Amino acid sequence: MTKKIVLLPGDGVGPEVVRESRAVLEQVGRTFGHTFEFSEHAIGGAAIDSHDDPLPKSTLDACQAADAVLLGAVGGPKWDDPKRKVRPEQGLLALRRGLGLYANLRPVRVHPKLASASPLKADKVEGVDILFVRELTGGLYFGQPRLREQRDGKVRAVDTLEYTDEEVRRVVRLAFRLAGPRRKRVTSVDKANVLESSRLWRETATEVHKEFADIALEHQLVDSCAMRLITAARSFDVIVTENMFGDILTDEAAVLAGSLGLLPSASLGDGTNGVYEPIHGSAPDIAGKDIANPTGTILSAAMLLRHSLGLTAEAEAVERAVDDVINSGARTADMAGAGGEALSTSAFGQRVIAAI
Amino acid sequence: MTKKIVLLPGDGVGPEVVRESRAVLEQVGRTFGHTFEFSEHAIGGAAIDSHDDPLPKSTLDACQAADAVLLGAVGGPKWDDPKRKVRPEQGLLALRRGLGLYANLRPVRVHPKLASASPLKADKVEGVDILFVRELTGGLYFGQPRLREQRDGKVRAVDTLEYTDEEVRRVVRLAFRLAGPRRKRVTSVDKANVLESSRLWRETATEVHKEFADIALEHQLVDSCAMRLITAARSFDVIVTENMFGDILTDEAAVLAGSLGLLPSASLGDGTNGVYEPIHGSAPDIAGKDIANPTGTILSAAMLLRHSLGLTAEAEAVERAVDDVINSGARTADMAGAGGEALSTSAFGQRVIAAI
Ligand SMILES: CC(C)[C@H](C(=O)O)[C@@H](O)C(=O)O
Ligand SMILES: CC(C)[C@H](C(=O)O)[C@@H](O)C(=O)O
Repeated sequence: MTKKIVLLPGDGVGPEVVRESRAVLEQVGRTFGHTFEFSEHAIGGAAIDSHDDPLPKSTLDACQAADAVLLGAVGGPKWDDPKRKVRPEQGLLALRRGLGLYANLRPVRVHPKLASASPLKADKVEGVDILFVRELTGGLYFGQPRLREQRDGKVRAVDTLEYTDEEVRRVVRLAFRLAGPRRKRVTSVDKANVLESSRLWRETATEVHKEFADIALEHQLVDSCAMRLITAARSFDVIVTENMFGDILTDEAAVLAGSLGLLPSASLGDGTNGVYEPIHGSAPDIAGKDIANPTGTILSAAMLLRHSLGLTAEAEAVERAVDDVINSGARTADMAGAGGEALSTSAFGQRVIAAI
Repeated sequence: MTKKIVLLPGDGVGPEVVRESRAVLEQVGRTFGHTFEFSEHAIGGAAIDSHDDPLPKSTLDACQAADAVLLGAVGGPKWDDPKRKVRPEQGLLALRRGLGLYANLRPVRVHPKLASASPLKADKVEGVDILFVRELTGGLYFGQPRLREQRDGKVRAVDTLEYTDEEVRRVVRLAFRLAGPRRKRVTSVDKANVLESSRLWRETATEVHKEFADIALEHQLVDSCAMRLITAARSFDVIVTENMFGDILTDEAAVLAGSLGLLPSASLGDGTNGVYEPIHGSAPDIAGKDIANPTGTILSAAMLLRHSLGLTAEAEAVERAVDDVINSGARTADMAGAGGEALSTSAFGQRVIAAI
């Protein structure tokens, strides 16, 4: 089959990790007899430099016409002044919103060989396997009004946390569906003891739960969830939560895996198109040095094969290849704490390709 | 000297831990020659039951007339239905707001003898000594509008995250002041790459920093802060942040200490009056069993002596007594993981009193 994949390398280490992932996808194409047509487009800081726009129309158009999008990372000190009107992150947010990608899937699985690299005690991280489903196009990120004004000699800034029952329902429903083939437990995270939007979230989750008799639902407050992710991470299966809580909790949980560089994500909407990206940032301090860990992006490419292209066997082949390479002792610098040989980005990528 | 202290035992284990802390304060009175006049008032679920109001006017009046307030905890399953109009937490929020307590101080110090009880590796928690300064009367907790409405067949819920430069300035200024006698480093946490209110927060912190030439200021995004609290907690000195981020990050950081039951807090405003409470909740599952850890509340009483009554030597005497008792091997059930003898709430309290 022929599929159109848009590559958005972005900033910092983005181009390096996307390059390796493209090579992995090309190998999948050769091995399984598919044709992937790749096209590269600008986003983030790079797009501000080249197009004066963190999400040029040509990029959004290409993404809308594609079967799937693989993204590196956006942002960097060059564009970091909070007073700038145009910032790299706006490109990412506009892309999520423009494609209607309301659900961000972030699996956090601790690889047994890397558990020792975790800052947590081994018995706290062994066997951790959490799937976060973060709402991605609502809440504080997009709510209106968002403004800054002068009033009575004071400066006042406002953001709005808003959700409709519909927005909650669709993402919670997806979380229940995803829990089915897993351990059948959903934890819905909110701050219902303080927020109106959280009370709506909790009620809607409880209502949607009626459609999924075989899945267990529990509610947890965001502050206690932040604790339980450290004290008892194994007790979670699927966690579903609103945009900002999801941003914080997924980054916190990522630490369990030992390195941020390992973790993939998928942003999905109602159709099959999606944006796939590692959860790490652009890491400007190590950009261009060929030492970034491509694993998070390669595993994002595996999620792309599964969720957007329906190629389950191919996705599993990539995931197995990454596992084999890590089991063989290959590491990048960020995972070297767990022992083994530290390879460059490209050498690690080559190992994965060879293992497919 | 004679000082008026209001006790608000609240719900769950609240009455047990407040009882021990009162006994500790009485011992301080005897040893140092002060008279503390105590009066007890209702708050939270208990106040809903007795007064139909989580913060009866009589309670707020007494707190306003007091020199300081010591609180146990509020909330519990009995009052937990998110559809209830009146909830225990509202009492706590109304008290903070009613007394103008805009700064919540939460020190997280890892006791060397308890480091092994932490879910983190010992080398990650040894020497951790963080002072959180959480903004407490602004942001999503109080912003207007907060509402729920029907619109075009959808239900829509809204909370508002709002800050004025004045609100940011006063709490950030306090953080800088508190950093002075410490390691002179302030980390201001925000989400300036997404939120208007965070950009105002960051600019205001940068501006206030000019008044404190000898203190270092760094800005950090809330998601990376959630990671760094696990990977490099020792690198923090004072952390200042807005209300909701503070709620999540302080609970996360509390885990480092090995038990939530150990940690105190102080909520302060412009005057000397303040509310002092442990950071743990009402723990309804262990209420009434005389096994709750009174340490967090006793250390809150020490903060009360220091911040509201100006009794530094007395505060240090209490803190030293707690240290001595823990060093001697005394534990409550929640700390028993670190070895030592598990005492009841009251027996542990007695040991502290004896050590003063
Ligand atoms: C870059 C930033 C806007 C983004 C977010 O907050 O969503 C990032 O932190 C993420 O989690 O993908
Ligand atoms: C009980 C709740 C309203 C409260 C808060 O969120 O502020 C608590 O979690 C805390 O941190 O003191």
